[in-house]
Amino acid sequence: MIATQDTQTRQRTADELYALFEEFSSKNPFPKEPAGLYHAVRHIMSIPGKRLRPILCMAAAEMFGADARKAVEAAAAVELYHNSTLVHDDIMDAASLRRGIPTVHEVYGTNAAINAGDVMIIKTYELLARLACPVSVKAIQIFSKAAVEIIEGQTMDLDFETRTDVTEAEYLKMIEYKTSVLLAASLQMGASIAHANERDAEAVYAFGKNLGISFQIKDDLLDAFGDGTKTGKKVGGDIVQNKRTLLYLRALSKADPSQRDELKRLETVAGEQEKIEGTLAIFNSLDIKNEVEKTASEYYENAIEHLQKIEIAEERKQVLYNLAERIFTREF
Amino acid sequence: MIATQDTQTRQRTADELYALFEEFSSKNPFPKEPAGLYHAVRHIMSIPGKRLRPILCMAAAEMFGADARKAVEAAAAVELYHNSTLVHDDIMDAASLRRGIPTVHEVYGTNAAINAGDVMIIKTYELLARLACPVSVKAIQIFSKAAVEIIEGQTMDLDFETRTDVTEAEYLKMIEYKTSVLLAASLQMGASIAHANERDAEAVYAFGKNLGISFQIKDDLLDAFGDGTKTGKKVGGDIVQNKRTLLYLRALSKADPSQRDELKRLETVAGEQEKIEGTLAIFNSLDIKNEVEKTASEYYENAIEHLQKIEIAEERKQVLYNLAERIFTREF
Repeated sequence: MIATQDTQTRQRTADELYALFEEFSSKNPFPKEPAGLYHAVRHIMSIPGKRLRPILCMAAAEMFGADARKAVEAAAAVELYHNSTLVHDDIMDAASLRRGIPTVHEVYGTNAAINAGDVMIIKTYELLARLACPVSVKAIQIFSKAAVEIIEGQTMDLDFETRTDVTEAEYLKMIEYKTSVLLAASLQMGASIAHANERDAEAVYAFGKNLGISFQIKDDLLDAFGDGTKTGKKVGGDIVQNKRTLLYLRALSKADPSQRDELKRLETVAGEQEKIEGTLAIFNSLDIKNEVEKTASEYYENAIEHLQKIEIAEERKQVLYNLAERIFTREF
Repeated sequence: MIATQDTQTRQRTADELYALFEEFSSKNPFPKEPAGLYHAVRHIMSIPGKRLRPILCMAAAEMFGADARKAVEAAAAVELYHNSTLVHDDIMDAASLRRGIPTVHEVYGTNAAINAGDVMIIKTYELLARLACPVSVKAIQIFSKAAVEIIEGQTMDLDFETRTDVTEAEYLKMIEYKTSVLLAASLQMGASIAHANERDAEAVYAFGKNLGISFQIKDDLLDAFGDGTKTGKKVGGDIVQNKRTLLYLRALSKADPSQRDELKRLETVAGEQEKIEGTLAIFNSLDIKNEVEKTASEYYENAIEHLQKIEIAEERKQVLYNLAERIFTREF
């Protein structure tokens, strides 16, 4: 379908999709009672967010010729589910803050937080069931596969904390599951709603998956080498927490025995300054920043290639190309 | 449809439905990896259980003329979801044992238990999505309404622990939500799969709901007045835990001021023996056992009435009539 000036086929911008999501949310508020339950749900849902997954979902639908309004329930569903994982993950990580705001379990207690996450999962499926058959079932299948993988990825991430032998392949699989498959599924659901063919729906899934992985790797890079202002997080947070990031794993594999010993010694050092400076020194001597930046770019280029091979007019892909670039460069 | 000797329309017994459920479970095992996640899932699913909800689901399907095999995914779904609520509830109640077996969070940790419950919810919906459209969407809607209510009921139950002004109406709503709606929904889903009409599907729902409430009230009675052998639980456990059961609420409403003061004083008494004996003495002087038994019977009779009004041959209802009686008298 060729884009024309006809408003029927003009694709919405990311900002317009954001507005559509917000409009749907305000027209579909959560119940009031029981208060303890739904206050907790509103607490997490009202943290200002980019709403990336719903925007991607609706953008994919429009790329394939459907009006975004046909995908707004699915968009709301993926955002609701994403937030439910944040509520449960924050319990598991014993996090007291999220984006500077107290976590749900801190404010309402762990029991309310478990219940809030659970009811959000159920309501995710209630939203998906509002789509027409057979698209609803297809969307539920796509979504459920991703949701299982997210939980498996979270399990892997928790397991890794107590292991010293995590491989790069395992790490990449974990971040694929934990952080990328929902982006990918959001896009694939949008495509499905627009009746895209199977091959194209899988291509847009692969676009999202690779984009998500590239973004997570860039996140790891920014944590160690960023200036703190873009992410709002302290530099070296991952190093302080002994997190097995791609940087750390790449350094371990490239290091000579004395550097490996030093990296492990630094894990036990109490002083944050020494820990961060020492680890970064080894990263720099092993050229980790450049290498891992290259890996991030490879995933990004893979993402773009998947989008390129979809056989529709290139101008229809502009919204997603633009979003991909803004996500990768953290302008979004 | 009139039941005949034709094996195509012979309805299965509860035992045969149980076997069908077990067969489906063994043919549809959970994944092996990640081990931490699925070991936890298998832990709860392998506790021997009556499998009441799946049996009711399939029995309803057969009552309305469908083969139970058409309802086995839905049956497996409701059992899986029921068990997911047990996993999360046990975390919230800080329970170390369930039926004498260590709880999932005790064995695998709270994080694995949260994840296990979550993945079980997702897989519940994957099972429901295996039904054909539009029945799958209908089943998902029926199920989801019940699932939301269960979580709301659990929220109410937790809230009640810190309140002294819980009314009988609130208590009955809480047990309806927490313990009865899933029984009801299981039946309604089975009816839906058999293409029962809306009125009959709602009648079988109401049968299940009332049956569930009557069973829970009987449970409260047994805790205080039973002999411990049938339930396997210590007599007076609810009294020791200051639980707001129907017995306690009925006693509070019937008590004179001095009895009310005594009931509240007993809540603070440390000695279990004194606490139980004192509370039972007040219950007995207020004839609570008889009154509450009457209430339980009223709900049971309501249940049977709903089943009676379904306009199909009475002999088709025998499986459910028998099950209802066995459940109510705790022979099941």
